[in-house]
Amino acid sequence: MSSSFNPHAASVAEARAAIRRGAWTAHTSGLARDHVQGNVVILPKALADDFLRYCQRNPKPCPVLAVSEPGDPRLPTLGEDIDIRSDVPRYRVWRHGELVEEPTDIAVLWRDDLVTFVIGCSFSFEQALLDAGLSLRHIDQSRNVAMFRTNIATVPAGPFHGPLVVSMRPLRASETIRAIQVTSRFPDVHGAPVHVGDPALIGIADLSRPDYGDAVDVLPDELPVFWACGVTPQAAIAQARPEFCITHAPGAMLITDLLNHQLASF
Amino acid sequence: MSSSFNPHAASVAEARAAIRRGAWTAHTSGLARDHVQGNVVILPKALADDFLRYCQRNPKPCPVLAVSEPGDPRLPTLGEDIDIRSDVPRYRVWRHGELVEEPTDIAVLWRDDLVTFVIGCSFSFEQALLDAGLSLRHIDQSRNVAMFRTNIATVPAGPFHGPLVVSMRPLRASETIRAIQVTSRFPDVHGAPVHVGDPALIGIADLSRPDYGDAVDVLPDELPVFWACGVTPQAAIAQARPEFCITHAPGAMLITDLLNHQLASF
Repeated sequence: MSSSFNPHAASVAEARAAIRRGAWTAHTSGLARDHVQGNVVILPKALADDFLRYCQRNPKPCPVLAVSEPGDPRLPTLGEDIDIRSDVPRYRVWRHGELVEEPTDIAVLWRDDLVTFVIGCSFSFEQALLDAGLSLRHIDQSRNVAMFRTNIATVPAGPFHGPLVVSMRPLRASETIRAIQVTSRFPDVHGAPVHVGDPALIGIADLSRPDYGDAVDVLPDELPVFWACGVTPQAAIAQARPEFCITHAPGAMLITDLLNHQLASF
Repeated sequence: MSSSFNPHAASVAEARAAIRRGAWTAHTSGLARDHVQGNVVILPKALADDFLRYCQRNPKPCPVLAVSEPGDPRLPTLGEDIDIRSDVPRYRVWRHGELVEEPTDIAVLWRDDLVTFVIGCSFSFEQALLDAGLSLRHIDQSRNVAMFRTNIATVPAGPFHGPLVVSMRPLRASETIRAIQVTSRFPDVHGAPVHVGDPALIGIADLSRPDYGDAVDVLPDELPVFWACGVTPQAAIAQARPEFCITHAPGAMLITDLLNHQLASF
């Protein structure tokens, strides 16, 4: 890490510059926290059209914030200077569904047919929940959020299919009602919950054993509240086994110039 | 009943005219269903100021749609021609907290110091839920909604105090989320729920034994959803035992010229 980069005080420009020069290669939670962060998926054009249809059909887990032109590494609607080849802290490169490397820059891998998707991320709605005065246990306990595969199938498109993956946050009833109000304002970052209460009704057998992330306790006066999760498209890609694909590494997101407030629908 | 009055086809003007001439003395559920109906409380000026403070401190159970001038039977913001002495199908007259009569007109009881309060009613948000495609079991089963006293105290003002009373509607999780979104738009008619899930957390021991109204089943894949209820101010008035008070009879509301849609906050 560069000694000149203070992650908790950095502006969005400073954060992205540190990421670009390789001075920040870790997760981006808490960086430039007023700004929208995004999940990144980069696919060859031949698959990108199917993937866009998949996202259109499954907007709650796959809210598309931006799609690039083929071969163009820029995303001008998310930030004038963004270059997707360098502006993610750490990438994952997949060939035929296998993880082959985790570089911090993908300039050498870039191709003229690659299309970048940026998909909304729960960091934005979590910030809105914190701003509304709610506490989120996984943040208080410095854990990753608990995520589960459900028995709800996504709508397939081309080779992309698979179960809806959800993230779970325990909240008291009054907090649940407030959280539904707050997150309903943010359809571009998963929006309102998809389920509340009995996990068995969506095919989750044991809340203490998440499929991804870390378990957190649900107290007797709390409800488990489930939101559609950006891991859903990643799981669909893993199932589709595209010949070539690049994603962000878990938690190491693209930081955009958009403010979270700008995504509020009312 | 007048043979010329068809309650299901009547306009708001026809419905109120039928009520005014004594041709309709029953409950108003389903009458002029696009229109806002209101709970009615009429108190002497000496108590009205305390009651208004009570409503201001407890806006979820007591959302005030209009307050009259003392002695003035009109409510011009709710309907140009409204005369509160004749425009409620059936009244209840209370003296020192005792129900003394249930007239259909209160002209002979009118006094120069009486102040009318009209308080939002769940009929408006129920119509919004039906418009959103949800089913409500008590309506499907032609029952009154189930209402319960909770262990949540309202904020007192003067002689007015007592528990929050809630109405309960069973909904599946996805319907619960939608219902929270829909009713949040209507703060003037109780707004978002106050509780969802475990009834014991708000002091309700047995959902099959409501304190008011009729019991309805909660199915295994449903959550009980609880809204603040307009019975709350009625219970507070019963406790305060004012020397003189007039209310509407249960379910026999004032029908106003306001459209339910006009109450939507966004």
